[in-house]
Amino acid sequence: ADAEGGDEMETVGAASSDYKNLIVTKQNNFTKIVLNRPTKKNALTREMYEEIIVALTEAGKDETAVTVITGAGDYYCSGNDLGNFMTIKPDEMHQVAKESGDLLRRYVNAYIDFPKPLIAAVNGPAIGVSVTVLGMFDLVLASESATFSTPFSRLGQSPEGCSSYTFPKIMGYAKACDMMLFNSKLNATEAKDCGLVTKILPKANFEADAMAAVEEIAKLPVKSLVYSKELMRNHEIDILHKTNEAECDRLVERWPSEDCINAVMKFFQEKNK
Amino acid sequence: ADAEGGDEMETVGAASSDYKNLIVTKQNNFTKIVLNRPTKKNALTREMYEEIIVALTEAGKDETAVTVITGAGDYYCSGNDLGNFMTIKPDEMHQVAKESGDLLRRYVNAYIDFPKPLIAAVNGPAIGVSVTVLGMFDLVLASESATFSTPFSRLGQSPEGCSSYTFPKIMGYAKACDMMLFNSKLNATEAKDCGLVTKILPKANFEADAMAAVEEIAKLPVKSLVYSKELMRNHEIDILHKTNEAECDRLVERWPSEDCINAVMKFFQEKNK
Amino acid sequence: ADAEGGDEMETVGAASSDYKNLIVTKQNNFTKIVLNRPTKKNALTREMYEEIIVALTEAGKDETAVTVITGAGDYYCSGNDLGNFMTIKPDEMHQVAKESGDLLRRYVNAYIDFPKPLIAAVNGPAIGVSVTVLGMFDLVLASESATFSTPFSRLGQSPEGCSSYTFPKIMGYAKACDMMLFNSKLNATEAKDCGLVTKILPKANFEADAMAAVEEIAKLPVKSLVYSKELMRNHEIDILHKTNEAECDRLVERWPSEDCINAVMKFFQEKNK
Repeated sequence: ADAEGGDEMETVGAASSDYKNLIVTKQNNFTKIVLNRPTKKNALTREMYEEIIVALTEAGKDETAVTVITGAGDYYCSGNDLGNFMTIKPDEMHQVAKESGDLLRRYVNAYIDFPKPLIAAVNGPAIGVSVTVLGMFDLVLASESATFSTPFSRLGQSPEGCSSYTFPKIMGYAKACDMMLFNSKLNATEAKDCGLVTKILPKANFEADAMAAVEEIAKLPVKSLVYSKELMRNHEIDILHKTNEAECDRLVERWPSEDCINAVMKFFQEKNK
Repeated sequence: ADAEGGDEMETVGAASSDYKNLIVTKQNNFTKIVLNRPTKKNALTREMYEEIIVALTEAGKDETAVTVITGAGDYYCSGNDLGNFMTIKPDEMHQVAKESGDLLRRYVNAYIDFPKPLIAAVNGPAIGVSVTVLGMFDLVLASESATFSTPFSRLGQSPEGCSSYTFPKIMGYAKACDMMLFNSKLNATEAKDCGLVTKILPKANFEADAMAAVEEIAKLPVKSLVYSKELMRNHEIDILHKTNEAECDRLVERWPSEDCINAVMKFFQEKNK
Repeated sequence: ADAEGGDEMETVGAASSDYKNLIVTKQNNFTKIVLNRPTKKNALTREMYEEIIVALTEAGKDETAVTVITGAGDYYCSGNDLGNFMTIKPDEMHQVAKESGDLLRRYVNAYIDFPKPLIAAVNGPAIGVSVTVLGMFDLVLASESATFSTPFSRLGQSPEGCSSYTFPKIMGYAKACDMMLFNSKLNATEAKDCGLVTKILPKANFEADAMAAVEEIAKLPVKSLVYSKELMRNHEIDILHKTNEAECDRLVERWPSEDCINAVMKFFQEKNK
């Protein structure tokens, strides 16, 4: 990185060379982003949100045709690290909520605006925001061991990742509400049946099989992929941005609320029993 | 009810204290609306439409978190009581059609504007408008004995309940047209497969199991449920209202038409054979 | 045809009396359009596009209630006849691309604007544009032997037939991208599971069974069918026309591109091995 600064990458808090929580590699015409915090089930810290924004922004501009995101270890991603909540002093609550809302908005925008095919290789359980953004991926490969849950209302929260728009479109209201209002957890087969997952691969050889599939895709004519994605997504870029705004605004209001604080505290108490 | 009137409830034709065709109870943080005309398979009379509007309007404002609608007896609801048609004098036809269109519009609006999670517990066969409004419910529990049919074209009519918008969104055109243009009847499994139903429960213990599920949901943080629903539905409130208008206008034109009168008469002749 | 001309039909290049590649018949209140080029797997030449436009335009205006499209022989339709590409001289490339774009636009408009129920009887493999327009049909009957593939990116092309809008709506993004970006071929069961197909019929008696189903539908009150379709489709006519424009514009740019020419040439080389 240029010591004189001024390059846009640096302003978002991480440089491609020194990811702390990701492993980003480029090979065979695709970019691979590995969430690499396996001891914490790849829970997303604020730093990790920033790093993913950088990694996606760079992959969107580089010479690779396709980007795949996967997780290290048994989990794909356990969602927002709730430890993010626990270190906040009461009088900083609203300020932190505002900043977290800004971060989430930028994070989700990185998916909305990603110009190339984006593939998820869901190697295990996926929770919260790692599930909700799946509606903006172009291919979702899942291990047999993958599960999908978005326990918003149990935690006093509300949907993000544009899922309040994409999930009803993908699976209908009855199933979307079951996940998003009523905390229902889907296994890989259920997720495939409702259209969230494209293909299920055996657990034993998941990593290799998924990467082989990505490699095949990366051989296709790049411009066709980019323009096809553009045609499919362009008529809803505006509604995705509006949805992201509305979802983040609501969460900024929710996070410091008594409802949410009580629900998160209850969650930790039950976890520590 | 205040004898001096002036409360909005009374203007829609029924007071909560004296439902004739519904049983409305409030317990464990949820409102339960039972369609209670089992000898007529819970067919909807005009009075019953009015009563449901009142019951939904009240439930939307009261302290309960969730509302569930179910039917007494073996049927969930056999739809519009076609007897509504049979008592009309020829010279009153257009006036009655206009009034019926207004009633239907207000009835469907009560679903569009319902602010809390709305659950259907479909205990048996569901026909017509009781099926079409399901696209505005947030959870649809169905007994194994439930069936779903919308025989519009057989009766010379056209879709209502915003189904011309919600059904293609939920199940795609090919399945939506099969139901709405071509009178195909779905069983519970087919309805679940196409996204209209969330969960199937055994017939033997349906009522108890369904209410236990509703009770669990009613324990969740209310505001999370309300705001999540708002995020999911808000971007289509306008299109739902427009769809409702267009559907009702078309039916006001259809009802007095020769097509429709002949089809309904044929239906009664075959029924009475 | 009137020798003095002036009738709109003739301007689109074919008269109903002299189809060369279609068999168009009218019986029992429905119009049947058979793609009749079985030795070429019913691949669409430019002449055939024009003939289908005429046949749909006439069927939309005549007294029949319903129109069904099917294929002669083992194939439903193998899509755009790639021979269309092979006879073009290099210096005519951009002009031909522009004319082909205009033809495709008019072809797809004939489906968008078709006012009556439109049924596909997919008797065997369907490829490319014959698959993409299925999202505008109202009922899709498929033989067990039917398959569905849209190998755009393999040919350096991009989606048409409004599929960039209808497919994500019908089947969700993950499945739509699998077909449209990544060349996945669906069998009849997979196509039914994702909502593209309404009903699968046995191969042995497909033609007779499918026509019997169409005949039943053609007995329904015509106006109900027409108005129901109008209600279901009207709120997206504008977006369908915009999607068609965007898709055709992109293809006019793609066709003369090196990407596309190389991919098509590679396809022919592999075919002739």
